[in-house]
Amino acid sequence: MTGIVPQRFETVLSSMCTEPHPTAVAAAEQFLASNAGDPATYQAVAALEETAVALLAEITNAPAPSGYITSGGTEANIQAMRAARDRHPRGGSTIVIGSHAHFSFQKAAAVLGMRCEVVPTGADHRADPDAVAAHVDADTAAVVAVGGSTTFGRIDPIRALTEIAHDAGALCHLDAAWGGFYLPFTDAEWDFAATGVDSMTIDPHKAGRSVIPSGGLLFADPTAAAPLRVETPYLASADQYSLTGTRSGAGVAAAAAVMQTLWPDGYATEYTRAMALAERVATACRERGFATPEVELPLVATQLPEGVLSELRSAGWRIAATPGGYARIVVMPHVTEAMVRELLTTLDAVT
Amino acid sequence: MTGIVPQRFETVLSSMCTEPHPTAVAAAEQFLASNAGDPATYQAVAALEETAVALLAEITNAPAPSGYITSGGTEANIQAMRAARDRHPRGGSTIVIGSHAHFSFQKAAAVLGMRCEVVPTGADHRADPDAVAAHVDADTAAVVAVGGSTTFGRIDPIRALTEIAHDAGALCHLDAAWGGFYLPFTDAEWDFAATGVDSMTIDPHKAGRSVIPSGGLLFADPTAAAPLRVETPYLASADQYSLTGTRSGAGVAAAAAVMQTLWPDGYATEYTRAMALAERVATACRERGFATPEVELPLVATQLPEGVLSELRSAGWRIAATPGGYARIVVMPHVTEAMVRELLTTLDAVT
Repeated sequence: MTGIVPQRFETVLSSMCTEPHPTAVAAAEQFLASNAGDPATYQAVAALEETAVALLAEITNAPAPSGYITSGGTEANIQAMRAARDRHPRGGSTIVIGSHAHFSFQKAAAVLGMRCEVVPTGADHRADPDAVAAHVDADTAAVVAVGGSTTFGRIDPIRALTEIAHDAGALCHLDAAWGGFYLPFTDAEWDFAATGVDSMTIDPHKAGRSVIPSGGLLFADPTAAAPLRVETPYLASADQYSLTGTRSGAGVAAAAAVMQTLWPDGYATEYTRAMALAERVATACRERGFATPEVELPLVATQLPEGVLSELRSAGWRIAATPGGYARIVVMPHVTEAMVRELLTTLDAVT
Repeated sequence: MTGIVPQRFETVLSSMCTEPHPTAVAAAEQFLASNAGDPATYQAVAALEETAVALLAEITNAPAPSGYITSGGTEANIQAMRAARDRHPRGGSTIVIGSHAHFSFQKAAAVLGMRCEVVPTGADHRADPDAVAAHVDADTAAVVAVGGSTTFGRIDPIRALTEIAHDAGALCHLDAAWGGFYLPFTDAEWDFAATGVDSMTIDPHKAGRSVIPSGGLLFADPTAAAPLRVETPYLASADQYSLTGTRSGAGVAAAAAVMQTLWPDGYATEYTRAMALAERVATACRERGFATPEVELPLVATQLPEGVLSELRSAGWRIAATPGGYARIVVMPHVTEAMVRELLTTLDAVT
């Protein structure tokens, strides 16, 4: 053994990963040796993947369960962009994203030989539909909407972005990798039925409390996944739609088990708890004079005086920064009231 | 819980995955919540990844440890092709592969906007250097060599293929995803020092006995990975070289732990055991009159009479086919003498 022990979560405010639910851990431990990429050989995990995709389709109000459990949000975003590129009549060369979109879209463009048109967000840190529309043209393969941005936790005007995409013959992809397990409990118009988006990333291993790796990619129209098909001549199974080949059975089993356990009530309870705690953090930051935009999902961005972020880090806190000089506190399930109290104590000591 | 239990391995002869070593399982269970994609937040797993890459570099005789733990062989192969494409002065558009190469190279070409030139293998089921040379030109980004083919378990003439690639200004990539943990104990010229290959896939989650997902991608020259770099603006970490974003800490920890435990003696013992058992299977098949090429690595291909393969499958055996009407029996660590005896009993009953 290596003698190295894992990171504990008691100082982690920077991550969109979290302590998995015990149900997820138990399921993962059973399936560490099962390859979800070879469903004909590993039939048990194939059945669990059907369950997981059906649950994701229910959560996102999809017309039918279509998609698979990915290695994470990046694979899901790359595959969605690939499907959009390959269905475009002229091999659509651009992806239109807001400046708040996850960096995986830049990675997708680099991998796929496409180009990202980056549109600055509005003052509200959301995609600005008029600005997006001005960047969309006949070469656009996909417009990206974000549901729970990694920068400010904001929800884009998803339906408006979908209409812009469709008017130009492009697809609209919603990145709800982090937000997808909170959005059902908000008033936002976000799901397949409400917005008409074509594909969606929603990751059980973030707010869904599954283990790593379990991301989710869903399509509104099952035929949209056709460009992703690859024949698998030597396997017992005939084809694959995934970017990776061998896939974690543990992630699939954990996702199925935890969603069966927590959807919908467990996720609703956690949404309420996390939002209340995020509001308290935001209020405490404002009381200390730090500019702190309104909280929309459980993520607090607060403008700390220069040097304070690095002092918090020196004191052991894991906190990331968001563009514009904001510290970013993600109130994941492992973030407790006690952690917040300790954070505020440290903050008061260093300011 | 789902009530579905995992596949047992007692009838699995089709898979290059296997029962992970107990050391790997124990390490994985500790790190199910750690994200190897964010090393600044998850520092313990970052240290383990350094250990794992250093061990892979030792096993493959690399000039220096350079690479990372991937989600599997497919990600490693895609990333190697991407690095080759992006370093090519004219954006090299072709990948030259043998007809025995893993289907992930077709997937890589589809994703990356490249084309696979598929060269038929020789009668010995290996890449034929002359035939490969005839397909290599100024547009070739990479030539692929295979070290342990998934079809017949064959080792290509790797050094000759590397010379052909280099003469054309292309890179040579070795896919030793499955073979890499057997090759050190053969007489084959295969490693970085002996062959001069530029990059290599070698998967701890196959014959390395780690858990899924843990693949390996290594580069001879650390600067060759430069095209893979993506900035990660909002994370505590500055950049990523991986295709996926969030990555399994469990896979990384398991790979480090099991390689520390089994390299080199444990792997040598398993190589000897698996080869002896594969030889016995091959002999038994020949005694029954089935054409069975020589065994080079622990994988037996045997030409069964029509209908017999599907009868074996009906009897519960998981066996895949290899082109040319061969059944393919992969003698992974979970394949025991008792399993082989039972297989032969079934075979005698259905022929």
